[in-house]
Amino acid sequence: MSPPTSPPGAPSRETQAPRGGTTPAARAVSIREVGLRDGLQSIATTLPTELKLAWLRDAHAAGLREIEVGSFVPARLLPQLADTAELVAFAQTLPGLVVSVLVPNLKGALRAIDSDADAMLLPLSASHAHSLANLRKAPDDVVREIGEIVAARDAAGSRCRIEIGISTAFGCTIQGHVEPAEVLRLLRTVLDLGVDRVGLADTVGYADPKAVGELFAQGREIAGDRLTCGHFHDTRGLGMANAFAAWQAGVRGFDASLAGIGGCPHAPGASGNVATEDLAYLFESMGEPTGLDFDALVALRGRLAGWLQGVPLHGALWRAGLPRTMRAAS
Amino acid sequence: MSPPTSPPGAPSRETQAPRGGTTPAARAVSIREVGLRDGLQSIATTLPTELKLAWLRDAHAAGLREIEVGSFVPARLLPQLADTAELVAFAQTLPGLVVSVLVPNLKGALRAIDSDADAMLLPLSASHAHSLANLRKAPDDVVREIGEIVAARDAAGSRCRIEIGISTAFGCTIQGHVEPAEVLRLLRTVLDLGVDRVGLADTVGYADPKAVGELFAQGREIAGDRLTCGHFHDTRGLGMANAFAAWQAGVRGFDASLAGIGGCPHAPGASGNVATEDLAYLFESMGEPTGLDFDALVALRGRLAGWLQGVPLHGALWRAGLPRTMRAAS
Repeated sequence: MSPPTSPPGAPSRETQAPRGGTTPAARAVSIREVGLRDGLQSIATTLPTELKLAWLRDAHAAGLREIEVGSFVPARLLPQLADTAELVAFAQTLPGLVVSVLVPNLKGALRAIDSDADAMLLPLSASHAHSLANLRKAPDDVVREIGEIVAARDAAGSRCRIEIGISTAFGCTIQGHVEPAEVLRLLRTVLDLGVDRVGLADTVGYADPKAVGELFAQGREIAGDRLTCGHFHDTRGLGMANAFAAWQAGVRGFDASLAGIGGCPHAPGASGNVATEDLAYLFESMGEPTGLDFDALVALRGRLAGWLQGVPLHGALWRAGLPRTMRAAS
Repeated sequence: MSPPTSPPGAPSRETQAPRGGTTPAARAVSIREVGLRDGLQSIATTLPTELKLAWLRDAHAAGLREIEVGSFVPARLLPQLADTAELVAFAQTLPGLVVSVLVPNLKGALRAIDSDADAMLLPLSASHAHSLANLRKAPDDVVREIGEIVAARDAAGSRCRIEIGISTAFGCTIQGHVEPAEVLRLLRTVLDLGVDRVGLADTVGYADPKAVGELFAQGREIAGDRLTCGHFHDTRGLGMANAFAAWQAGVRGFDASLAGIGGCPHAPGASGNVATEDLAYLFESMGEPTGLDFDALVALRGRLAGWLQGVPLHGALWRAGLPRTMRAAS
């Protein structure tokens, strides 16, 4: 294992004042851009590193203050994300940005610690069948590894935040139904292991807003404000309704990908993650500031469309534009 | 004025037992198909009458029990809807179907009464500017005409239900902001005039779920269960979230158009009404029966795509299909 690059006891970058630039507007809701990881890993096109760097720079300029830049998985499995270490290094130069990476296991976690990323995101599938298919481990074996990751992070004196995303929390394409009680058991278990944050993910687009409201409310009874993230896909058109239901349950952090890229290889043309620009519009239209600049997001979306020609893009706001009422208010 | 074709005191078709066929499943939520009116009036293509009849027949077979079949407006203004009387006559042969028509004024209302339609829908714009642009009358002049329509309906001994849709209830492309207090004033006024039902419409896709929840809750304080309809457009991706918020406020009736046809001529490519099949999925996924058959709706959508080549269609469910969990449950 490589030694951590930040000295023990150093403040996390997240709590540092922004380095240069203006202080972002007060945010009632925080959106994490995950297109560079969850989006790009699902599509065949490998975006050149220089374009990813441009995406990172422009996303930061549009006001995003947390970005999942990639994943520390073996390059042979996901060649699209092989440049993650380079992206982390660049992202660390962007003022006030929380740099997140996905890691599938202890090995990836050690690379995340070594890279000095601000946060690592670990998926833990609530579906036993999905967990075996995706990570080749049962959920409780993943839980054990999460314990080792927490210990390794602490032993290294790293401040890298550990966030567990409970995936397939609302159902699974392989297993079908997923018991809410199992989701809540896993959530309680990983919090007991000392992880910093948890989120619930509708990985396959099975969630409905009633189920979302109920499960996030139950989750918050266990995790309180450590349940920080709602991760929704728009596969069947309910992404915005589900995000709204999670917001009603008190959730104030959400994952999203620009232009809704991602999708599901088993449903050609189906939407992937909720679109960053549409999710920002949902909350801004409700009077909940996100700190994001629509014009900058839509301009970046246009550049992305040029980079990913032939890849289906999603989202609605870019076509219709902001309503007159919001233009007048800004 | 032509005499009404139904004798005074006759039961409305709506309260009659279904004529043949099976009794529809208990419906927790009722969806009214408005594609034949709100959808087709917004697009340049004029669908031949025989295809509209096929649409009506197949929509009924898919479980829809209220359909807005057209509009009694002068044919020179909306040639796409010139065959409305013929559609009403055919729709009346479909068992248990509530046959609705839009009427813009007293003249149209008299034609609706004459046609023996079950319900007439009257738009009343809460935006003064929109009302002038759309109907060349101020809202209070429309209110006066609504009083005349109620009197004419009653004098004719007709049971034709009168429903007022308060349009631009959440904002207006011309005027911008619309005062919720003005929406509620109009709602109270038309109920005092003796209309049977009222609805609130986000005509231009400006609504957000917070505003929807608040305005429908206030509306229901005034109208109770006579506030029967939420009419949402998906222009900026919030159609499903807004429908969910209205449902939370107690609304159980919604307008929708198959494949989300409609759109706004001023925003090319932008979605129109919420898609019937997606709205049905929203409620069914929450365990709220709609009485609709997804496979039949998606098959009809496919036929519609053939009839309306070149017209942008919308919606998500048709791509992704039902989740495994719902297939297993049905």
